[in-house]
Amino acid sequence: MALYVYKFGGTSVGSVERIKSVAEKVKKAQAQGDQIVVVLSAMSGETNRLIALAKEMQAQPTEREMDVLISTGEQVTVALLSMALHEIGCEAVSYTGGQVKILTDSTYTKARIKAIDDIKMRADLDAGKVVVVAGFQGVDEHGNITTLGRGGSDTTAVALAAALKADECHIYTDVDGVYTTDPRVEPKARRLNHITFEEMLEMASLGSKVLQIRSVEFAGKYNVALRVLSSFEEGCGTLITYEESQMESALISGIAFNRDEAKLTITGVPDLPGVAYKILGPIADANIEVDMIVQNIADDATTDFTFTVHRNDYLRAKTILEESCAALGARKVTGDNAIVKVSIVGVGMRSHAGIASTMFKALASEGINIRMIATSEIKISVVVDEKYLELAVRALHAAFELDQVIEAA
Amino acid sequence: MALYVYKFGGTSVGSVERIKSVAEKVKKAQAQGDQIVVVLSAMSGETNRLIALAKEMQAQPTEREMDVLISTGEQVTVALLSMALHEIGCEAVSYTGGQVKILTDSTYTKARIKAIDDIKMRADLDAGKVVVVAGFQGVDEHGNITTLGRGGSDTTAVALAAALKADECHIYTDVDGVYTTDPRVEPKARRLNHITFEEMLEMASLGSKVLQIRSVEFAGKYNVALRVLSSFEEGCGTLITYEESQMESALISGIAFNRDEAKLTITGVPDLPGVAYKILGPIADANIEVDMIVQNIADDATTDFTFTVHRNDYLRAKTILEESCAALGARKVTGDNAIVKVSIVGVGMRSHAGIASTMFKALASEGINIRMIATSEIKISVVVDEKYLELAVRALHAAFELDQVIEAA
Repeated sequence: MALYVYKFGGTSVGSVERIKSVAEKVKKAQAQGDQIVVVLSAMSGETNRLIALAKEMQAQPTEREMDVLISTGEQVTVALLSMALHEIGCEAVSYTGGQVKILTDSTYTKARIKAIDDIKMRADLDAGKVVVVAGFQGVDEHGNITTLGRGGSDTTAVALAAALKADECHIYTDVDGVYTTDPRVEPKARRLNHITFEEMLEMASLGSKVLQIRSVEFAGKYNVALRVLSSFEEGCGTLITYEESQMESALISGIAFNRDEAKLTITGVPDLPGVAYKILGPIADANIEVDMIVQNIADDATTDFTFTVHRNDYLRAKTILEESCAALGARKVTGDNAIVKVSIVGVGMRSHAGIASTMFKALASEGINIRMIATSEIKISVVVDEKYLELAVRALHAAFELDQVIEAA
Repeated sequence: MALYVYKFGGTSVGSVERIKSVAEKVKKAQAQGDQIVVVLSAMSGETNRLIALAKEMQAQPTEREMDVLISTGEQVTVALLSMALHEIGCEAVSYTGGQVKILTDSTYTKARIKAIDDIKMRADLDAGKVVVVAGFQGVDEHGNITTLGRGGSDTTAVALAAALKADECHIYTDVDGVYTTDPRVEPKARRLNHITFEEMLEMASLGSKVLQIRSVEFAGKYNVALRVLSSFEEGCGTLITYEESQMESALISGIAFNRDEAKLTITGVPDLPGVAYKILGPIADANIEVDMIVQNIADDATTDFTFTVHRNDYLRAKTILEESCAALGARKVTGDNAIVKVSIVGVGMRSHAGIASTMFKALASEGINIRMIATSEIKISVVVDEKYLELAVRALHAAFELDQVIEAA
């Protein structure tokens, strides 16, 4: 008998019919002799409806009250799913985060889980019941309701799987797994049977929005086997674990990209200690997040400094940088917001040489000029002109034979 | 410094604007130096929306899950009101029933309150905060969410007022108080400044649907001074206490009526011990509630037995009674569903003779035939033909000078 935690997102419980379909799926799994804990999000649209109501009440809603308000969304879905399970003859019991209980710190709207009490859940599972838990929410040591922030239901599922030592944590979503790249850009993109936590973190942070990053970090930390599957189709999805597949011949696992970035360069900066801080400090003070950073030393005791920011922050960042340029006695500021970042990700890089040159060669052979390069242990990112996005992704997908690789399941 | 519990129903918090208007009212009261605890219902329509969702899930929704579901309605309003209070500079903190905590038994959907923990509320009040509590809900000793049944928010308010030894419990509703009778029937009906618990109980159970009966019983039991007021207009409403007003010269306080009843009579029943049980037992077994019961002994060792039921149950009750008629060897069954019950209510009856004859004389002088009479210590009810309802109410209102009485406030 195995123990599984199933998590269904807002789209999967977005209507009466879909909740009933989740109930059928859960009943079927339980009928195979497994113990099932289900974690649910609010019905799609509900959280946004509640947030809109809150903003009508208060320009900056009090965070404690915001959590009291939006935690009702998941409380509704767990009650409804439990009813749907009862209707088809499957014993079930619902719990709010406070009832489980999922103890968090008191950081309203983005609380961190501190402990989970598994006594009630274990007793229910042993009594043959399905346990249905409200995702995204917990309670602090004073009994105040807290929420875990965006995507928090994934975190709840992983945390429950860790506390219950579940065999696997299944994240049901509207895609059937993790792909080598976005199928809308490269139709030959292929679902991966297996990917490592590290690769998944790099893929997620680079724009493959399948799983919430914090839940992947959490799963890695507590070594919870995560599986991403479709709520709507059959299939085994993508398993995410620490282990690299033994039979895996792939050098890289996937190609991620990000269209939301813009590039800023300040040239001719006198190369003195502390220059990076003087350039990026004012940017950070304005609450602008910086992604890639590259610095070249030029010959004449000056340096050129390039970084990327979110496109929405481009104009603000450029203005700040122009002020710094004058203050630092640098030459000039240039920028480009028609760029994209394309990255190859794979733990195979660690043990294989020549990955970077394969990447650069593939791009060069398509006449794509590389504007910026950054590397990490299992990832190489390049910035190219926006118009080359599709071409670059397809060229890299082919160069690394991602459509052809045969994986071990 | 006085302590008040204010309760606002679903209509009073039915929109963003109305919640803001409640916030203004609460702020004003607090600014006068009083401590305020607010109890809220769900936004009007919300509970019914959730119940409809539940019924789509399960033909007979599991009651535990029903309570998890519908308790979210009040959780939403307490968060929103707290935000609205913060927005206008009034410190406030919301609590669910489970957070207060309001301990109940485990009778889902109609739980009874067993105890209330007032520690958090007292600390908040002493710190100058408004305490906003979700009505209608509690938690059992195992931490399961319970609800108190229809009108349960009134009960919550009274229970909190009792626990906190509040000076008064204000029930804000869409009427501005308790009237001598329904103003739609008698335009001369007058708002009462004061009424006793016993009178209110008789008025409420007879169809003046201002307050939920259980909350009045509860207020009486714990001697909580209740005041019914309008959410939308200024005014002092009607105060409900044990004490009879010293200056009150009224013999009766009001005239109640009920259009929902039907009358059934079985005649010529052999007058043996246990006959009442044999007649009413099968009616009760069919879950039909009986209101008035009158039995006359006839001369020939038989008895005539008359009772009233809700009109919706009339045909079912008649069928059952016809079966009993044959089994008992009674003469026949007759019935009438075009009747109304009209009642005069007043503690003045205790100390004044001749009330009944004044009532009967007033009806006779209008040519209204009385079909049935029942009396209690502070109430006399008559059944008359439906067509006489308005005439009877106005005749009695005039006969007891209800439009003229000057009360002490």
